[in-house]
Amino acid sequence: MKFLILNGPNLNLLGSREPDIYGKSSYAALCEELTLFATRIGCEAVCFQSNHEGELIDKIHSAREEFDAIVINPGAFTHYSYAIYDAILAAGLPAVEVHLSNVHRREEFRRKSVIAPACVGQICGLGIYGYEAAMVYFLDRKNEA
Amino acid sequence: MKFLILNGPNLNLLGSREPDIYGKSSYAALCEELTLFATRIGCEAVCFQSNHEGELIDKIHSAREEFDAIVINPGAFTHYSYAIYDAILAAGLPAVEVHLSNVHRREEFRRKSVIAPACVGQICGLGIYGYEAAMVYFLDRKNEA
Amino acid sequence: MKFLILNGPNLNLLGSREPDIYGKSSYAALCEELTLFATRIGCEAVCFQSNHEGELIDKIHSAREEFDAIVINPGAFTHYSYAIYDAILAAGLPAVEVHLSNVHRREEFRRKSVIAPACVGQICGLGIYGYEAAMVYFLDRKNEA
Amino acid sequence: MKFLILNGPNLNLLGSREPDIYGKSSYAALCEELTLFATRIGCEAVCFQSNHEGELIDKIHSAREEFDAIVINPGAFTHYSYAIYDAILAAGLPAVEVHLSNVHRREEFRRKSVIAPACVGQICGLGIYGYEAAMVYFLDRKNEA
Amino acid sequence: MKFLILNGPNLNLLGSREPDIYGKSSYAALCEELTLFATRIGCEAVCFQSNHEGELIDKIHSAREEFDAIVINPGAFTHYSYAIYDAILAAGLPAVEVHLSNVHRREEFRRKSVIAPACVGQICGLGIYGYEAAMVYFLDRKNEA
Amino acid sequence: MKFLILNGPNLNLLGSREPDIYGKSSYAALCEELTLFATRIGCEAVCFQSNHEGELIDKIHSAREEFDAIVINPGAFTHYSYAIYDAILAAGLPAVEVHLSNVHRREEFRRKSVIAPACVGQICGLGIYGYEAAMVYFLDRKNEA
Amino acid sequence: MKFLILNGPNLNLLGSREPDIYGKSSYAALCEELTLFATRIGCEAVCFQSNHEGELIDKIHSAREEFDAIVINPGAFTHYSYAIYDAILAAGLPAVEVHLSNVHRREEFRRKSVIAPACVGQICGLGIYGYEAAMVYFLDRKNEA
Amino acid sequence: MKFLILNGPNLNLLGSREPDIYGKSSYAALCEELTLFATRIGCEAVCFQSNHEGELIDKIHSAREEFDAIVINPGAFTHYSYAIYDAILAAGLPAVEVHLSNVHRREEFRRKSVIAPACVGQICGLGIYGYEAAMVYFLDRKNEA
Amino acid sequence: MKFLILNGPNLNLLGSREPDIYGKSSYAALCEELTLFATRIGCEAVCFQSNHEGELIDKIHSAREEFDAIVINPGAFTHYSYAIYDAILAAGLPAVEVHLSNVHRREEFRRKSVIAPACVGQICGLGIYGYEAAMVYFLDRKNEA
Amino acid sequence: MKFLILNGPNLNLLGSREPDIYGKSSYAALCEELTLFATRIGCEAVCFQSNHEGELIDKIHSAREEFDAIVINPGAFTHYSYAIYDAILAAGLPAVEVHLSNVHRREEFRRKSVIAPACVGQICGLGIYGYEAAMVYFLDRKNEA
Amino acid sequence: MKFLILNGPNLNLLGSREPDIYGKSSYAALCEELTLFATRIGCEAVCFQSNHEGELIDKIHSAREEFDAIVINPGAFTHYSYAIYDAILAAGLPAVEVHLSNVHRREEFRRKSVIAPACVGQICGLGIYGYEAAMVYFLDRKNEA
Amino acid sequence: MKFLILNGPNLNLLGSREPDIYGKSSYAALCEELTLFATRIGCEAVCFQSNHEGELIDKIHSAREEFDAIVINPGAFTHYSYAIYDAILAAGLPAVEVHLSNVHRREEFRRKSVIAPACVGQICGLGIYGYEAAMVYFLDRKNEA
Repeated sequence: MKFLILNGPNLNLLGSREPDIYGKSSYAALCEELTLFATRIGCEAVCFQSNHEGELIDKIHSAREEFDAIVINPGAFTHYSYAIYDAILAAGLPAVEVHLSNVHRREEFRRKSVIAPACVGQICGLGIYGYEAAMVYFLDRKNEA
Repeated sequence: MKFLILNGPNLNLLGSREPDIYGKSSYAALCEELTLFATRIGCEAVCFQSNHEGELIDKIHSAREEFDAIVINPGAFTHYSYAIYDAILAAGLPAVEVHLSNVHRREEFRRKSVIAPACVGQICGLGIYGYEAAMVYFLDRKNEA
Repeated sequence: MKFLILNGPNLNLLGSREPDIYGKSSYAALCEELTLFATRIGCEAVCFQSNHEGELIDKIHSAREEFDAIVINPGAFTHYSYAIYDAILAAGLPAVEVHLSNVHRREEFRRKSVIAPACVGQICGLGIYGYEAAMVYFLDRKNEA
Repeated sequence: MKFLILNGPNLNLLGSREPDIYGKSSYAALCEELTLFATRIGCEAVCFQSNHEGELIDKIHSAREEFDAIVINPGAFTHYSYAIYDAILAAGLPAVEVHLSNVHRREEFRRKSVIAPACVGQICGLGIYGYEAAMVYFLDRKNEA
Repeated sequence: MKFLILNGPNLNLLGSREPDIYGKSSYAALCEELTLFATRIGCEAVCFQSNHEGELIDKIHSAREEFDAIVINPGAFTHYSYAIYDAILAAGLPAVEVHLSNVHRREEFRRKSVIAPACVGQICGLGIYGYEAAMVYFLDRKNEA
Repeated sequence: MKFLILNGPNLNLLGSREPDIYGKSSYAALCEELTLFATRIGCEAVCFQSNHEGELIDKIHSAREEFDAIVINPGAFTHYSYAIYDAILAAGLPAVEVHLSNVHRREEFRRKSVIAPACVGQICGLGIYGYEAAMVYFLDRKNEA
Repeated sequence: MKFLILNGPNLNLLGSREPDIYGKSSYAALCEELTLFATRIGCEAVCFQSNHEGELIDKIHSAREEFDAIVINPGAFTHYSYAIYDAILAAGLPAVEVHLSNVHRREEFRRKSVIAPACVGQICGLGIYGYEAAMVYFLDRKNEA
Repeated sequence: MKFLILNGPNLNLLGSREPDIYGKSSYAALCEELTLFATRIGCEAVCFQSNHEGELIDKIHSAREEFDAIVINPGAFTHYSYAIYDAILAAGLPAVEVHLSNVHRREEFRRKSVIAPACVGQICGLGIYGYEAAMVYFLDRKNEA
Repeated sequence: MKFLILNGPNLNLLGSREPDIYGKSSYAALCEELTLFATRIGCEAVCFQSNHEGELIDKIHSAREEFDAIVINPGAFTHYSYAIYDAILAAGLPAVEVHLSNVHRREEFRRKSVIAPACVGQICGLGIYGYEAAMVYFLDRKNEA
Repeated sequence: MKFLILNGPNLNLLGSREPDIYGKSSYAALCEELTLFATRIGCEAVCFQSNHEGELIDKIHSAREEFDAIVINPGAFTHYSYAIYDAILAAGLPAVEVHLSNVHRREEFRRKSVIAPACVGQICGLGIYGYEAAMVYFLDRKNEA
Repeated sequence: MKFLILNGPNLNLLGSREPDIYGKSSYAALCEELTLFATRIGCEAVCFQSNHEGELIDKIHSAREEFDAIVINPGAFTHYSYAIYDAILAAGLPAVEVHLSNVHRREEFRRKSVIAPACVGQICGLGIYGYEAAMVYFLDRKNEA
Repeated sequence: MKFLILNGPNLNLLGSREPDIYGKSSYAALCEELTLFATRIGCEAVCFQSNHEGELIDKIHSAREEFDAIVINPGAFTHYSYAIYDAILAAGLPAVEVHLSNVHRREEFRRKSVIAPACVGQICGLGIYGYEAAMVYFLDRKNEA
């Protein structure tokens, strides 16, 4: 299986950004770990990060031809980007929404995801492991089918 | 008259995207039909689509010198892009907001347009014809003046 | 095609009523223009106006036998008449909701239509042309079918 | 006992109107069944239907002299007609509100009745039987008193 | 001056209807007192009551030719009839909204008037005197002008 | 037919509890009357009351094998027990929700039922008769089918 | 009869303050007119104005011994002073709330009075005449009793 | 590591209950799969299900001595049981909230979890795999520490 | 006098549970202190704690025969258990609601008590003393009567 | 210990003001009882009442030098005086908020205290005893420390 | 230019009051710094502080004759004093609202200013400098005019 | 000190865009004035404007290495860009939010800033001077430290 790992705004600052919330490893380290993990389970993972909503949408559109599933951490776009919600529905690829931190323990606005209804499921608060679990989920589902 | 036909995020996927809601013709076919229609009524229409809010704003700004009116389907930006609302007010060009589907029959969030108060009017649910009606409206209004 | 053009409360005062919002032509002139327009596109239009919610409902019911489509400007009933909403659903005739002014630019209460979800679509802010566009839409749809 | 069976807007279309929600028997059949049922339990039932809020109010007012109780299905007026609410309070006759379908399973707006607080009780979702149960209730109550 | 005294739904039951809230005199007595009062201050008052929203709107429209001002107790229509709100604005006659009881001391829904913004002012809780005060107000205003 | 008559919290105190709202007969008397009534219409009724949400859920689950329909007065659980809502959906047995008093005339919170959307219908304000009407309804429906 | 005419914050600036809303006569002129008017109808009126909520409350308390009724324009305190609401209830004197302008036509916050439920009634939008009407009301009521 | 797998109301009906939402395997099968899975990763898992909020709370309390972490699917209690929220905080054991279905795609009320802020994280929509991912997460976290 | 001291969910964990909020003494110590205190003022106190809503309701019901008053700390049930609210009203015993911590300084949801309107009064933030004050209150009231 | 007993607006009318809610003893009697009570427990209490928000704030400020704790019944200021909330925080003295009546059983607006989050705790519904309990609480706390 | 520097409730406690939020310099020091600053820029500044809403309103009224502009920190009155809002509008002097702390980072209620719409602008979070910036702004504006 | 002056969408149209709200000088003139002003106070200012949310975020990220502080006018992004809010928090640079017009006097939606809680403070309504004041603030703060 081939996964597109999408990360939204400010996730490029991982490690330097509020490390007590988001952990200490950098975005590069996150990518390395995730691509390695994908290989280990016999899959492939491509990471893409952007602070531009439009670039994420473009990527989701083009993913249809190349990827089997999307693992997306939309960052703050989670809370207002109905355009990404539409993009996932339009692309028709299964997606899992991931958040590093437990959004239910932070500012009130973080509890509402406008994107989650377009996804298969959501994982939050489990750090980097959340991305990995999403990949394993897709693999399991494929093997079961 | 010269019209700028603006289409927002995900409209590039027309035809392949949820065809029961948005119809079966592609974005290219939409553009062809609209430019043809414009010619037929003695006008000109230029189509522009972007998944990037900023590009739509840039386009609206630059339209002031080149176009007489805007026909805009803001896609999901309809529901939160106060920046496009401001752009239309700032550009000072008359605009009509168009939606292919009847936004009042779908998810609750689609019923609120933050952009409509900056426009002359709004058409929804009439499919591609909505764009054409907007052009005819502008032409009629010009002829009456 | 035969259209029923329904106008709700206070539209009989067109021309004398707040002309800066609703324009200067009278209700009689509106009817004349619309029936003429219908003839010009090879159709027939019958105009009916009432300030009585019940009469509009009765008319919608009886329209089933005589008309192919409804063009309705429910006036202020737009904002609370769930009975007209039910009537359109019950009658089963396709309807387009029309408003002369852009309801999104006026009092807050005018932005919510309880009737729109029962219609095929909605046009607002385009003046009398809105009614005409609705008729053309129905004709186009029939020809395409 | 003599019952006034009031039916509000669009109930005259019973049978032809969305039969999966409202059942297949016509309004005439409903009336026949209910008057027959009333006779069978030694009572009398008079049916009255109107799409006009004012006519329903007039009827409620005049019912004071002729009827012992009201069984009312206010249709869509249920959700906004404070005037009918006032009419029932003003008339002083005991009333039971009836709905053919389960209003709690449909559009959100149908869950709120502004009329129910003026009634003795409410029955919904039990189809035509709801009207009959209301009549039996009044009869039982009278016999117990 | 010539006043149109409009009374909305259920006010025809005055005297018999919840006398602890609305007083003991009948609607006929109210009319007699108000027309007498008008005569005493050198004016004329015509009373009109209807339980039909549409009839009140029709009356407001036709009042433009015959009356100088409107005194209106919209009854329960106060709380939802945007159509009467529009009618008063469209007619262009000055109007004062009157309520027999203090709407601020009763059910929550009675505290909101959708019609008051179309009127010159509002009087509530002063019983029949409220109508008289409205007439004196108009007379004073005319004399001052 | 065999009915399970479920009563929720505090209904065991019937008779002694606020008799002006809930009537003077005890819970034992209610059960006796209902089982007798069921026999009279050729059915069987088993009464079960609990102040424990979990026991009510357990009972609904086990009812699938033994009963044809459920008549449930969830008491205060009506207003927050999404677990009972789920239990009724999960059990798949048809249920009618019953309330002794008219919930629309009491505290605001009593007007909202989270359970009603899982039921076939709802009866309130008709006292003990409400339970009986529910049983007759199920019998009628079975006979008609 | 002896009336206490209470005026709340900023009413001392009458005449100079937004004259298009509040009229051109000064607070002194208002007092003079009202005391004169009171004399003319055989009563006595004492005017008191304060920008201090506490002083208005103190005045209401002490009014119990000296006055028969209160005519109060609470100014902006209308919208939040539950303390004045309590003071009127505690004093036990009948009061009428008066506003010079139609509060329903201005900022949204002006539409809610927290004081009105403690009063006999409310008059707004009738300018200075509102105070006079309140006095006449109290006199009428006394004469009728 | 030793895990307590808690399942709330109605999860005992898994397999027979709405299989299109919750899948076809029974609760027994779920338990078997999860305990097996735990063994496979060198851990131990104990399953406990109850329809009684109080039993779940008691279990959470007693878990402090016996378990390292909790995996909890609170079922419908998710949406109102502040008592379970408190229990998790009071017990001090790390917990992950799991839902079989994507709660963001179903009824509105399912989108709000009052329990999630007491947990480390939340997984929804991934079916049985969600429980397994939670266990792996705890194991990973332990190994990293 | 004989008091029933009711404690709701999670209060059995007192001392070990978030000691900075709830203090360091255990539930056993709380009971001992309160029964001792009761004896010291010539009364008797019986403590009962449960994490089961149903058991608390059962206890309140049975308290009618044995106790003079209830002192209840409903724990998290405070915020949603309308069933306990009903139980207190149904039992007819005077009750005082007590909270160890100041609920107004914590999570927003803790500020709303659905049970308080069924009680004589409420004490919060005064720690264990709150229970004692409630007992003294009942004793004082009895002595004054 | 030395207590400042603060009473807000309208509490000076105690005894004469709605005695069924607030009791029959006068404000003077309240003060006498409370100062006596304070002496009896070896403390000192000074009573201060004002209808002026500013005077209460001034008093709270100056209390810092003279008093050990504040017992405050803010009257209607409870519901909107963020200035008193700030004053208590700024003064840094521990305070307990007291209400004579159970604010949860009266008008909706009385249920919200903007001041309570600045206090140690809150007591309501226990009449004059509430003030006494607050003093005993402070004494206990001091003795325990 | 002559400035009136108004400070609302609790600002007299500056320095001793929550110094981590409001800084360590006293109110006297604030006044000294501001008057000095005014002199330095060739202006005059008069400081006035009160915990009494009425005194602030009186001061605003009298400012019309003596001052050119107002710099106002309304303290907690910011959030509810519509009377000060009205006073600024009535006085007609330009005003800038200043807050020492960033109101957007504190309690939710501090984010709403009912006074700001009556001012030219608002500055928050910049400490004492906010007052100075306001004075410079007025001076700049005067020089530009 | 080196300042990054960020301007959001539509601010490039300054001067031509609604000049009665935003003033007559162009964006170029604004930049010139601000960089000149920075130089005059011994600092450096770099202006950056974009209609693209992503470009603003990228710029904020890169500012960490080059600038000491940010002055940001987010334009319409103020009201929904949680991504910019996160970017400012992530970058860790102090920022002041500036608006040319008084957002509290315009459309309701402009009153809410989702970005302000990430900033040190906010200035609105003071025109171009707002940017300058922000720079002086940062300079003062640095000099004081």
